[in-house]
Amino acid sequence: MSADKQAGSFVHGGNVHAWARERGSKVSGVLDYSANINPLGLANSVREAITQSISQVVHYPDVEATLLKAAISSYYHVDVEHITAGNGAVELLYVLAHTVRPKRVLIPAPTFSEYERAARAAGAEIEYAYLSPDNGYNIDISALCSHLSGVDMVFIGNPNNPTGTMLTVSQLERLLLAASQAGIIVVVDESFMDFIIGDKEYTCRPLLKQYDNLVILHSLTKFYAIPGLRLGFALTQPHLSAKLHAAKDPWNVNLLAQAAGVAALADNDYQNKSRQVVNGEKDILYAGLKVLPGLKPFFPSVNYILVDISQSCHSASELRQAMAEEGILIRDCSNYPGLSPYYVRVAVKRNEQNKVLLERLEQMLG
Amino acid sequence: MSADKQAGSFVHGGNVHAWARERGSKVSGVLDYSANINPLGLANSVREAITQSISQVVHYPDVEATLLKAAISSYYHVDVEHITAGNGAVELLYVLAHTVRPKRVLIPAPTFSEYERAARAAGAEIEYAYLSPDNGYNIDISALCSHLSGVDMVFIGNPNNPTGTMLTVSQLERLLLAASQAGIIVVVDESFMDFIIGDKEYTCRPLLKQYDNLVILHSLTKFYAIPGLRLGFALTQPHLSAKLHAAKDPWNVNLLAQAAGVAALADNDYQNKSRQVVNGEKDILYAGLKVLPGLKPFFPSVNYILVDISQSCHSASELRQAMAEEGILIRDCSNYPGLSPYYVRVAVKRNEQNKVLLERLEQMLG
Repeated sequence: MSADKQAGSFVHGGNVHAWARERGSKVSGVLDYSANINPLGLANSVREAITQSISQVVHYPDVEATLLKAAISSYYHVDVEHITAGNGAVELLYVLAHTVRPKRVLIPAPTFSEYERAARAAGAEIEYAYLSPDNGYNIDISALCSHLSGVDMVFIGNPNNPTGTMLTVSQLERLLLAASQAGIIVVVDESFMDFIIGDKEYTCRPLLKQYDNLVILHSLTKFYAIPGLRLGFALTQPHLSAKLHAAKDPWNVNLLAQAAGVAALADNDYQNKSRQVVNGEKDILYAGLKVLPGLKPFFPSVNYILVDISQSCHSASELRQAMAEEGILIRDCSNYPGLSPYYVRVAVKRNEQNKVLLERLEQMLG
Repeated sequence: MSADKQAGSFVHGGNVHAWARERGSKVSGVLDYSANINPLGLANSVREAITQSISQVVHYPDVEATLLKAAISSYYHVDVEHITAGNGAVELLYVLAHTVRPKRVLIPAPTFSEYERAARAAGAEIEYAYLSPDNGYNIDISALCSHLSGVDMVFIGNPNNPTGTMLTVSQLERLLLAASQAGIIVVVDESFMDFIIGDKEYTCRPLLKQYDNLVILHSLTKFYAIPGLRLGFALTQPHLSAKLHAAKDPWNVNLLAQAAGVAALADNDYQNKSRQVVNGEKDILYAGLKVLPGLKPFFPSVNYILVDISQSCHSASELRQAMAEEGILIRDCSNYPGLSPYYVRVAVKRNEQNKVLLERLEQMLG
């Protein structure tokens, strides 16, 4: 564990616009391995819902997000009173931070940098719980529990980004219990949970009614490939849900995103196929990365793979730059607190795309 | 002026979804006079920009909103460093409130209720500056200036919603100067300014470089008829702009809204025609309302008209309900602090629609 230390920068993957601007190219000309988006792309049902709703953007979005919340409630088996719909899960992260105004937050490192950025925006100090590569960056619940003193909020990515580690719901319940006794809010980010086949062992949703201090964040942009449209939700106790609603713009979820979300959650074929493709391809890509010289991939749980490249002749920054010249974006992870400058992250895409990635990497590293 | 008093509710106009749900009807079946949206509807250029960008929603939005900010900069003659792009202007109102955390805010009454809601969400107390129907609800700058003591933020709608009154830039400069000396932020909401033909006499944009305490909010959803898509911006000093960027979700403006905004700001034909139609129709509708029994409309500056119906046999609530049964939504203004239960607001729409409104009103009141 470590005292407060400011993360160097908050650069994210997926910035295809900057890539295209620098090169005078089109966004469509890039193979984006830097953003963890479902490689199946936009479902036809979602595309149709968006297209058919364009004429309705002359109306305000439904402030209650009635149909969307009903769809979330039904799909994820949670009561509507627990749901706050967001302009992406990250918007709700900021609304939560501004609403609760934690003084000191505990954040495993490495993890998604927006937890820190949102907490800092609300005035919080950060305490990192550094994870170790020696045990695959797995989160040690006992270690975490022993550092709860003086903290009022904890963030956990489950699966964690960029490491891909997961905690079972029984492990998380130990943390929730310890935190509950100390009045600490536990924010569990389940934004990649939809990629898991059978999430029962992992999701905290069934604990919602039991733990007053549990907040679940859930993005719908990754699994349904709609990051450009923005959509996500938070699950909390109704009293906190009411506070989040009061602290946010009432029209935060645009009308097209609401329509897209309803269509997406009803598309079981797309959901099943996505899980099938990603779970197959992640193992193939992992195996392919493992045999490349100087690469040490961490075993993936969902649609991204963290890779230690310290035994190659490249820093993450160099490799990112060289790959970008070839039209392939990968995530340089050197700005993650808790990671050396020799880590990259790649998304899991379709088989033929992953082959191109592996070929280019082999050329670079060979 | 009055001490802190909680507004009864924050119900808004434009909730066509609730209307449709209650009746099992389609949203398209309603004539919505309760939301102040450009009656020309979606510009073809904007519709096309949205349609052509749908395939790109698999990518994150540009976090810098580069093209959108360039278009705003060029159209409104403001440097990019002053601009923060928003998921609607109202999102930025909340981000501003959460960032600045004012302790006590001064708000003319009646005005747009989100100023109060956002300020309260950030923990502020509210002081209303009650406006008088005797001078057409005009904002008296001298009276406002004399009540700045103990306040750290002031909100001004220019044009003001729902009253339609306007202040000249020289009047506002008096307020800015007095507020500046007391370290008070003045938030001027210019969300309806685009409807004005020749806004030079009214907009505070030229004062941006001069007054450190000036914040301008500007919605793009009303004039370009895209409230369902969400788009707006704030103009502030660069140091506050940096704080707003740090306190918001980096991906707050969805990709379709960014594309729509760029197309909208380039569509001079739509802009000119919109101003021409609205400015002609508002006078015709005003004259039509004026001759109806029991109605006292306030002279409109832009695309909405406040109407005192106290001399009719109806309360605003009754009239709203009766009109809703006829498929016409009007805004019951009884939840505005500073207005009696006998005020309604109607939007200015196209000539043939306004005729229907006037006919139905005549039947109701006759």
